[in-house]
Amino acid sequence: MKVSELGEFGLIDCLAELVGRSGGGEQDEDLVLGIGDDAAAWKCRGAVHLATTDSLIEGIHFVLDGVSWEDLGWKALASNLSDIAAMGGRPGYVLVSLGLSGDTDVEDVVALYRGMAALAGECGAAIVGGDTVGAPQLVVNITVVGESSNEEGRILTRSAARPRDVVAVTGVLGGAAAGAELLARSQDLPADLHSALLRPRPRIDEGRVLVEQGVLAAVDISDGLVSDLNHICRASGVSARVRADHVPVLPAVGDAFGERALEMAVAGGEDYELLFTAPPEVVERVRAAVSCPVTVIGGILGGGPGRTELVDRGGQPFVLSGTGWDHFTGTQR
Amino acid sequence: MKVSELGEFGLIDCLAELVGRSGGGEQDEDLVLGIGDDAAAWKCRGAVHLATTDSLIEGIHFVLDGVSWEDLGWKALASNLSDIAAMGGRPGYVLVSLGLSGDTDVEDVVALYRGMAALAGECGAAIVGGDTVGAPQLVVNITVVGESSNEEGRILTRSAARPRDVVAVTGVLGGAAAGAELLARSQDLPADLHSALLRPRPRIDEGRVLVEQGVLAAVDISDGLVSDLNHICRASGVSARVRADHVPVLPAVGDAFGERALEMAVAGGEDYELLFTAPPEVVERVRAAVSCPVTVIGGILGGGPGRTELVDRGGQPFVLSGTGWDHFTGTQR
Repeated sequence: MKVSELGEFGLIDCLAELVGRSGGGEQDEDLVLGIGDDAAAWKCRGAVHLATTDSLIEGIHFVLDGVSWEDLGWKALASNLSDIAAMGGRPGYVLVSLGLSGDTDVEDVVALYRGMAALAGECGAAIVGGDTVGAPQLVVNITVVGESSNEEGRILTRSAARPRDVVAVTGVLGGAAAGAELLARSQDLPADLHSALLRPRPRIDEGRVLVEQGVLAAVDISDGLVSDLNHICRASGVSARVRADHVPVLPAVGDAFGERALEMAVAGGEDYELLFTAPPEVVERVRAAVSCPVTVIGGILGGGPGRTELVDRGGQPFVLSGTGWDHFTGTQR
Repeated sequence: MKVSELGEFGLIDCLAELVGRSGGGEQDEDLVLGIGDDAAAWKCRGAVHLATTDSLIEGIHFVLDGVSWEDLGWKALASNLSDIAAMGGRPGYVLVSLGLSGDTDVEDVVALYRGMAALAGECGAAIVGGDTVGAPQLVVNITVVGESSNEEGRILTRSAARPRDVVAVTGVLGGAAAGAELLARSQDLPADLHSALLRPRPRIDEGRVLVEQGVLAAVDISDGLVSDLNHICRASGVSARVRADHVPVLPAVGDAFGERALEMAVAGGEDYELLFTAPPEVVERVRAAVSCPVTVIGGILGGGPGRTELVDRGGQPFVLSGTGWDHFTGTQR
């Protein structure tokens, strides 16, 4: 069978099973979360350590047309820091492995690092290691190591959603998808869409607050709201219903795309907001403790694991052209 | 300036300086080693943590002709675990990020993971995370997180070589280079060269012994003996002299390549043995405590940082066609 037939998530399940079987020894006792969440987690001397890794490949995950190397560095690191935020963790150290062709300008590589270093500094993380190798196209691999933001080692996982939780999201959505579409058309980006697409700020402080206030289940929105909520549903063995018209949309997306804005918010991905589930009173406490918007967009239902139902205000199915991107099949899923 | 003009090490120096300037805060106080050694190292609750990352790109770092996916997985992980061994550390957790084209066979990816999992199991490490993304060619990025093998947090670094240390090496060399050359000619590999090239065993136990016995400076042989010894010389501000005829050569290399065997041992790379410097009596203690060969091949001299002089038994320069591979200039250095 080809990877494209099995799909990204089928492949990850298959590899996670293989790796799970091969384990044994001391590491297994300390392991909190292996393959399948936003980050791996393990116990270490009273703390819970977190680690996440991600590769971005030119021509597949990004193009450099209209994107500065500094923006690319910022965004590449942001997507990894966002995984730590989605665990409610605190990032510590960053390792970068770059694949570069020999005719790359040194100034561009320095700008890429400058973008990463600026965001790392804002988030209290330090770039401490890395590796540069030759490659036919730019490859940016980033690993972030961090730890739980509290002494008790509590973290957020995908598997802790429970029936009767509500589904909530931080911030406003759709900006990254709208920005990407304008960029693909070689149009100038309004400031809000530029920030959303190229300078996202990982919700690290908000992730910490979620843990403090008793939230258990979260994911960051990287693939798209429905697709990422399905990750929670699959891992938790539950279903979800989301009211499309409750999804908060960045105003600049409406300005640029009108009626299509909602679809961009619901299916676009790369907004790096936190999507979480908790009892309503917990969500209220979170709302009071953070400075960004927190919006309830739906609820968790029992039964039929893995399904997210998107409905309009009348309760009828809200039809999308797609709900996320599969890296291998090259299709929405 | 192009990356190929600056070269791999010039670029790393440049990025290390940029990142060093951008730091600040809590992380900096705890940081033991940033960019420029085999692994990054930082203090954490009384322990010293280690992390290393590396990318291998098809067509640049490996070809799949004559190499099974299982061997590739083993070897890719071995090169990372070897970095932890070169710090005298104990590997803990492994994160894998794979770039795959959609028409890759799932069975091949499973075999790659099987190779990694087999070596991880031997070394007491667990594969706990990862990511698979689409890519035009196979990209294997591996991150290993570990910690110092002793409670005092002592590790091996590149910067601790001192004049009057002797230079010693574990095991025997040249097998990987010899194996690679036979493979490039589509010839069958004798068992010893197959093991050396495709199933190297990182010297984790030996690295731990080096620390226990008081060795301070070490590196693993990945680029080639002279090139890797130059890393120590540059970082320690010393020079080194190595007697080429004292370099231990894997017998099977001599069987296959006759007189060229010594050059393969001296310049070949990818043997993943440990190269270390210490006072002679410390090397004797190491030799008594490990089961592999330990060979003194030269000594550390003061002055003229960064130079390794390779001499024959008469003290005359031993001339090599090259001493290591630069990923960007595509030349021996």
